[in-house]
Amino acid sequence: MKTSRSLLVGGGAALLGGLLFLACRTTGTPSANLAVGDAASKVYVAPGQHDEYYAFMSGGFSGQVSVYGLPSGRLLKVIPVFSQNAENGWGYNEETKPMLETTYGFIPWDDSHHTELSQTDGVPNGKWLFINGNNTPRIARIDLTTFETDEIVQIPNAAGGHASPFTTPDGRYVVSATRFSIPIGDAGENRDVAIDSYKDTFKGTLSFVKADEPTKMRIAFQILMPGYDYDLGHAGKGPSEGWFFFTSYNSERAYTKLEANASQADKDYIAAVNYKQAESCVAQGKARTVNTRYAHNWMDEGSRAAKSEMVASVPMLDPRTCPGLVYYLPTPKSPHGVDVDPTGEYIVAGGKLATVIPVHSATKLLKAIADKQFESEIDGIPVLKYQAVLAGEVQKPGLGPLHTEFDGRGNAYTSMFISSEVVKWKLGTWEVLDRAPTYYSVGHLMIPGGDTKKPWGKYLVAMNKITKDRYLPTGPELAQSAQLYDISGDKIKLLLDFPTIGEPHYANAVPASLIEQQQVKFYKLTENTHPFVTKAEAQGGIKRAGKRVDVNMVAIRSHFAPDNLEGVQLGDTVYFHVTNIEQDWDILHGFAVLGATNAELILNPGETKTLKWVPAATGVYPFYCTDFCSALHQEMQGYVRVSPAGSTVTLSANTSPRAATQLARLPNGSAAPRAHKHGND
Amino acid sequence: MKTSRSLLVGGGAALLGGLLFLACRTTGTPSANLAVGDAASKVYVAPGQHDEYYAFMSGGFSGQVSVYGLPSGRLLKVIPVFSQNAENGWGYNEETKPMLETTYGFIPWDDSHHTELSQTDGVPNGKWLFINGNNTPRIARIDLTTFETDEIVQIPNAAGGHASPFTTPDGRYVVSATRFSIPIGDAGENRDVAIDSYKDTFKGTLSFVKADEPTKMRIAFQILMPGYDYDLGHAGKGPSEGWFFFTSYNSERAYTKLEANASQADKDYIAAVNYKQAESCVAQGKARTVNTRYAHNWMDEGSRAAKSEMVASVPMLDPRTCPGLVYYLPTPKSPHGVDVDPTGEYIVAGGKLATVIPVHSATKLLKAIADKQFESEIDGIPVLKYQAVLAGEVQKPGLGPLHTEFDGRGNAYTSMFISSEVVKWKLGTWEVLDRAPTYYSVGHLMIPGGDTKKPWGKYLVAMNKITKDRYLPTGPELAQSAQLYDISGDKIKLLLDFPTIGEPHYANAVPASLIEQQQVKFYKLTENTHPFVTKAEAQGGIKRAGKRVDVNMVAIRSHFAPDNLEGVQLGDTVYFHVTNIEQDWDILHGFAVLGATNAELILNPGETKTLKWVPAATGVYPFYCTDFCSALHQEMQGYVRVSPAGSTVTLSANTSPRAATQLARLPNGSAAPRAHKHGND
Repeated sequence: MKTSRSLLVGGGAALLGGLLFLACRTTGTPSANLAVGDAASKVYVAPGQHDEYYAFMSGGFSGQVSVYGLPSGRLLKVIPVFSQNAENGWGYNEETKPMLETTYGFIPWDDSHHTELSQTDGVPNGKWLFINGNNTPRIARIDLTTFETDEIVQIPNAAGGHASPFTTPDGRYVVSATRFSIPIGDAGENRDVAIDSYKDTFKGTLSFVKADEPTKMRIAFQILMPGYDYDLGHAGKGPSEGWFFFTSYNSERAYTKLEANASQADKDYIAAVNYKQAESCVAQGKARTVNTRYAHNWMDEGSRAAKSEMVASVPMLDPRTCPGLVYYLPTPKSPHGVDVDPTGEYIVAGGKLATVIPVHSATKLLKAIADKQFESEIDGIPVLKYQAVLAGEVQKPGLGPLHTEFDGRGNAYTSMFISSEVVKWKLGTWEVLDRAPTYYSVGHLMIPGGDTKKPWGKYLVAMNKITKDRYLPTGPELAQSAQLYDISGDKIKLLLDFPTIGEPHYANAVPASLIEQQQVKFYKLTENTHPFVTKAEAQGGIKRAGKRVDVNMVAIRSHFAPDNLEGVQLGDTVYFHVTNIEQDWDILHGFAVLGATNAELILNPGETKTLKWVPAATGVYPFYCTDFCSALHQEMQGYVRVSPAGSTVTLSANTSPRAATQLARLPNGSAAPRAHKHGND
Repeated sequence: MKTSRSLLVGGGAALLGGLLFLACRTTGTPSANLAVGDAASKVYVAPGQHDEYYAFMSGGFSGQVSVYGLPSGRLLKVIPVFSQNAENGWGYNEETKPMLETTYGFIPWDDSHHTELSQTDGVPNGKWLFINGNNTPRIARIDLTTFETDEIVQIPNAAGGHASPFTTPDGRYVVSATRFSIPIGDAGENRDVAIDSYKDTFKGTLSFVKADEPTKMRIAFQILMPGYDYDLGHAGKGPSEGWFFFTSYNSERAYTKLEANASQADKDYIAAVNYKQAESCVAQGKARTVNTRYAHNWMDEGSRAAKSEMVASVPMLDPRTCPGLVYYLPTPKSPHGVDVDPTGEYIVAGGKLATVIPVHSATKLLKAIADKQFESEIDGIPVLKYQAVLAGEVQKPGLGPLHTEFDGRGNAYTSMFISSEVVKWKLGTWEVLDRAPTYYSVGHLMIPGGDTKKPWGKYLVAMNKITKDRYLPTGPELAQSAQLYDISGDKIKLLLDFPTIGEPHYANAVPASLIEQQQVKFYKLTENTHPFVTKAEAQGGIKRAGKRVDVNMVAIRSHFAPDNLEGVQLGDTVYFHVTNIEQDWDILHGFAVLGATNAELILNPGETKTLKWVPAATGVYPFYCTDFCSALHQEMQGYVRVSPAGSTVTLSANTSPRAATQLARLPNGSAAPRAHKHGND
């Protein structure tokens, strides 16, 4: 256990690169302010009992979403989103590959940063979870009745979709902003210009994506911005409803060694966007149509097979031609989080190099705009006077404030990266009420509903960046770590350390009751419209069209039908279309074939999935069920025979021994070639 | 909560497919025999404290290994093995792609079934963990000082490498046996024969793989066997040392609808292999050299870059020409596990359709062989009389016995899939001592050291196949689940349910002290022999050779050097060779570039990894660090410019603004082209 406490006092920019990475080593006494037995009983969820909350955590560089139960910290599911997931064939099978299409082609990975639950009137409604891809900017929508990713939309004219996918309280939009500015051309192209022309040519964009209609996510409009790095965002509510706030750093417009060069200015900016004004400008024809391209991918409901389309243009707004669209709020220093309290009056910034936590006032913001309290203008964007919009500053909060959540009782909780702690302070008086160490280097915080109008202020989760000595070590790379605190009383009480998948940058949680009752237990076989669905054993078959062979197959406890396939030839491409015809909860089957240069299929009940296989050599290849389904799961297997090109072996698909008499039928009802004694053995 | 208990009485084979899949629903009262507070305190590991045991669980269809802490059930790490892992670039970056090569080509997935810790004299030594790939048979070796997969060897002449990778107590061999027999030709080819020629043409193999020398895993010999399905295995020890036991089912040699057709015979067989006799036969030249091919892949220690080679032959033994090599022990019915007690005297079979648990005696086995107590012979393999080798039978143990572990105090614990319970019974008297429900449908069990000479008999983990109502639901697919029991007293006490990754089929655990002190904290930069390593910032650079561009780059808190790259042209293939020059524990960096059709890199300290990128269009592309490394991590970014083919933009790699004066150097010390004012902007 580490016992020294080394609070680093922030120095000049030259020191920052060398010093700020050091995690603060706070005393390791566990649960210093809570008896161990008490903490144990508060996080223990007895066998058979359920957790109180669903917590959805971004996977960070895993590209996925991890679902945890709280207070136990148990990992309930990893939902594949932006990264291929060989475990269930996501991004490998034919049905899900289109979900990962982009204008750059098929991309097998992204860096998923922030989760956001869909809202009605500023309160989570339990329908969908959004999550952003940061590297190749995209936003995904996950259906919380199935826990599957059903839609992904790419963000064009952008790089580093970091301030995303935060929602408006009415659920109409989710947003994305460029973390990395790029040289955007008039036609939405990425320009071939010298990097050192940055200040003249690089631009940022803020994107508003229509998000309230499944399968129809679209860029509603983009706003062309100065070439800063946009970091995080949150919508206003109450008095600030209709506004969206985005932090930015690198107002220095540096393009090399940003750790020093983008840490010069004492203040950067929060961009306050009036998105109702944006709608008005678009309606007035003030947006330019940029003929860019972006991918829109969605899961077809009936077939559970994804489709991908390219959308051809976006409406682009320029603050110069849409007055009242954007204002800049000066904010110290390199701000990270921008968080709006449940009432909507306070806009809290976490300036990671700031020595205070500045809080802006929605009321003062509106008045300052009306009074034209501007100190300057940047690229058509009026810069408001700091003092004209400031509600107050939290003094001496700690070092490296990043991100704030709220408990709904008038208190705010801010993560302090450098001093490795959570600080509780009072909205309105700005006084620090309590602080608790984190182990170590906390990034975001999460209180269930803590960024909405209705926080459930019982727990707080700290998402820490550096673990060091908190768990049994696992080689050079240690687990990322979360910590659960009880915030129901006056004092913050540490309850539990639990490791996390990837690197969660943000999370959302809601009471289980909002989600658990609406679960889809299986896909209805009668409603399966997949073109290669097989709804009954007798309907399986095999069919050739040139070098393409399609196999229609069912999986049911505990066999495949058909399970003896012959007539495939070297040079063929075989598509196994396997339908799990079970209609019972949690009865899944898997499908894998020896030597396939592909992942397996995992089949939800009622679902059809397709494995593409190009046999590498002649011979007989077993296939089998990979997901333990019954006491006779181990017997759930079959064989497919591959003969040389031009072989006379008849195409056949059988299920019984000596099956020469059995007729395999194709989905259209026609008879497959009758099997007979084989040609070349 | 389910309250009905429906113990299914095994019926005829016709009923099995329809009935046996039903999980027994036992009363859900949690911890019925333990106060909740007591259980909570037994599994609670206070913040900052470490778990007592490392548990290594197979990922099943995830293809990976999951590392858990016990008793907390916290997931400490997922070790990528057989499946691509976009999260850290495993199987995507140039250094790890060779690890997934096979004779079929690059395979992005497998189904990892069983873990096995390396042993010295029958006791885990904490050096390595082995795990098998079932679909395209392979065995992987993981180094427990780094928690990374360092070697993978393919198993030729095999399909379904299920009875694997169990070790001999001296650590010399790990084994693999065909779960699916295939038509193996004389030259080791997979024959193009009719599936209904199964009984004449399909064969199994048992493979012994030399495993005690890192980077040199090789098939020592294979044994050609009748065409059954081989299931699980364990080595003998003490009186049975020198023997290896494998279960088999499908002695009916069915090849379609095995759930019925392979469930006919009352008994199947355990194959007892005298591997010292095998060595002797090989030494005497009795093995046939089969000119097959198999992949052998290993991580080069200095460069941390994998190599792949094809090995050209295996020695194949036939029981007919090596008398005394294999004996069959009749065993009821479709046996799954075969487990040898810590003394080595008892060989316990779990016949999943059996009504008793049969236990064979090593002493009686040796005597029966000496006395030639044979009832028949199959393909040169003498079949011993059941009664001649039987030590005893556990009567009325429950339904569906699968797998047994031992506590080192004379007790055995058997999982019962159908009746969903763990049954504790006494070795020697065969009396049932206790039973505890599992929720639901338990597969394997694991006691730390429970399949070795030295069990640490404090905990037992049940790996359950069907979860149903145990956790908050997550759509059609629910988490696989493990349960932790306290077995330190007379009664089995349920402590905790915890979800697991993929579907763990087996696990091993050892006290933390065996592993935690030996951890590699970082790779030494001075010992990095990667051909594209960059050991200092000034040594970065960019170099062109035709259409190939190599970038040498360092990552260090919190910048890349170089971070401004120009001169790349459309049509080029760019290799970013990034070296993390940190030399501190858990300080990783990541690397990703906009639009790359690839995963990211995650870089351990001291390590070089390579991202291959083929730009899709001209423009300026940001790259950034994906693994939060410091307070200024967000500033850790750079740009690479892509110009049209034939562009006059000079190749340059810079780190300072207006860097025209800076000389980029290549690793060989030569100067890269000097950057100057760019040609076409």
